[in-house]
Amino acid sequence: MSKEIRLASHPEGMPRPENFQLVEAELNEPGADEVVVENIFLSVDPYMRGRMMDRDSYLPPFQLGETLQGGAVGRVIRSNHADLQPGDYVNSMMGWREAYVTHGSVLQKIDEKLAPISYYLGVTGMPGLTAYAGLLDIGQPKEGETVFVSAASGAVGSIVGQIAKIKGCRVVGSAGSEEKVRLLTEEFGFDAGFNYKTPDLPGTLGKLCPDGIDVYFDNVGGIQLEAAIDLMNPFGRIAACGMIGQYNDIDPPPGPKNLIFVVGKRLNMRGFIVSDHFDRYPAFLKDMGEWIATDRIRVRETVVDGIENMVDAFLGLFQGQNIGKMLVKLR
Amino acid sequence: MSKEIRLASHPEGMPRPENFQLVEAELNEPGADEVVVENIFLSVDPYMRGRMMDRDSYLPPFQLGETLQGGAVGRVIRSNHADLQPGDYVNSMMGWREAYVTHGSVLQKIDEKLAPISYYLGVTGMPGLTAYAGLLDIGQPKEGETVFVSAASGAVGSIVGQIAKIKGCRVVGSAGSEEKVRLLTEEFGFDAGFNYKTPDLPGTLGKLCPDGIDVYFDNVGGIQLEAAIDLMNPFGRIAACGMIGQYNDIDPPPGPKNLIFVVGKRLNMRGFIVSDHFDRYPAFLKDMGEWIATDRIRVRETVVDGIENMVDAFLGLFQGQNIGKMLVKLR
Repeated sequence: MSKEIRLASHPEGMPRPENFQLVEAELNEPGADEVVVENIFLSVDPYMRGRMMDRDSYLPPFQLGETLQGGAVGRVIRSNHADLQPGDYVNSMMGWREAYVTHGSVLQKIDEKLAPISYYLGVTGMPGLTAYAGLLDIGQPKEGETVFVSAASGAVGSIVGQIAKIKGCRVVGSAGSEEKVRLLTEEFGFDAGFNYKTPDLPGTLGKLCPDGIDVYFDNVGGIQLEAAIDLMNPFGRIAACGMIGQYNDIDPPPGPKNLIFVVGKRLNMRGFIVSDHFDRYPAFLKDMGEWIATDRIRVRETVVDGIENMVDAFLGLFQGQNIGKMLVKLR
Repeated sequence: MSKEIRLASHPEGMPRPENFQLVEAELNEPGADEVVVENIFLSVDPYMRGRMMDRDSYLPPFQLGETLQGGAVGRVIRSNHADLQPGDYVNSMMGWREAYVTHGSVLQKIDEKLAPISYYLGVTGMPGLTAYAGLLDIGQPKEGETVFVSAASGAVGSIVGQIAKIKGCRVVGSAGSEEKVRLLTEEFGFDAGFNYKTPDLPGTLGKLCPDGIDVYFDNVGGIQLEAAIDLMNPFGRIAACGMIGQYNDIDPPPGPKNLIFVVGKRLNMRGFIVSDHFDRYPAFLKDMGEWIATDRIRVRETVVDGIENMVDAFLGLFQGQNIGKMLVKLR
């Protein structure tokens, strides 16, 4: 038996617990080349909110009544596949469930000696690659430039800022609590951080970026995007990674009033999705492995126990309840 | 004596005639290497509105009491410079005046046999290069793609659309009157055009772009930008050339509500200024010369007579009184 979470209804606005359903499902016997996997860590990510809407985006929407998909790290407990042995750790998109049976070839075996297995859902997984490809390939920061990243204490933002520091940039981050802001400088090595709930966000950001902003890594949209555009230097780059501030809006808010500066400042605003950048995974894993080993990248995780708390963990993302990667631990 | 136009006060909102002052100025005697030029055509361009504000942008603001600068084509009438003879035609930024004295080395001699001299302020000048570099280098259209251009009957837009047709694209344009819309298809060879004042702009644009939009050449911002973002295909490019709809706004309007699509669709929105692309001038002039000679690019101009009407011509840009390049003819 495996407990799993299905989408019961499409959320309107902020998802509520009744949009989800926890059910127990039988596991099939594994057939030829199939394996049985017990999940250990499940990933909750803000982008999943988009798939809960009843419309196509870059990923197909979650179907009502079907078990939700998401990143997960688990352990093989039975195997009919030649390349996988019981005890092997695997990464999959078979999250939101305790266990599953699938064809062995769709699983990525992971090396628990290289990094703790949970990291494959975070710093050495999709969020890490998002930070790496988004900052380096889209943002293209140069030594001495100023990089601003919003949602800077999160799974992606905390890595963006640390990579930017490695590349010799001045790094400023925003976060949603005093504790998080302190972490930005004390733990993650940012040059400055601020609470985006400050009454004067543009003024605060301006003071922390006396030489303007060359790269804005945007995780939130809204007034932080507008404030950043005001401060961008000519030929600045905006890596548009997400707009978490709007994922639950029923009526989307107006866009930045100062978008006209894109012309005069020759700004380049470019959206990206990590799956378009999988070719960077080998280079990323090599760099990230070194940076973690030499303590140049520090990792924080927020771990919630039990699949019963999966929905709460997911909803907590939108209340800023995570520092670093938010994970659900099953065993 | 030379009549010239000076900025009397910084306009607030739509400029009014009293923001300008027509004065008569003495011409100095030309010194060593100097020449005397009588202007024949003066250029009015929407970007000039930006320089009338009291703040720096990519160009310094016009100073109160000084003669305004702008593109002009004139004829040398006296010369102390070895490379220029009386009768030579020259292009300069010494517009908004009938005649001037300057050092010969700051003038570009133009070839009246290659194209009519007025074209050097339009299709073979800055607006043409803006269209060429903006479409080809920023927009990067591929054969078979759909290109949408706003302000499509104007100096830049009409050339953008025709170059896009030469490159094998489906081309849709918007303009502000039925006469202009008719010209888009009948004169400039667009596949479709529409009046942006239609009550259902998004629906109209959608019908004309059944395969979505791959490149949006944005001259106007506002609701046309929002409608285009809705229709953009994945990896679409927005060449942000100008936002004429907002140049006279005292309070900038909100930006597009759907900017979040930049992420999921991986859109690339990039602002540009023609002066960053002067290195493309030789290639541009060669291509454009051929295209005009073979009637693949058709040129329209709106010509107003006399420097007394210069301000009206400039203000007319914001009421859509031009088809193609708007010029003031002095003699």
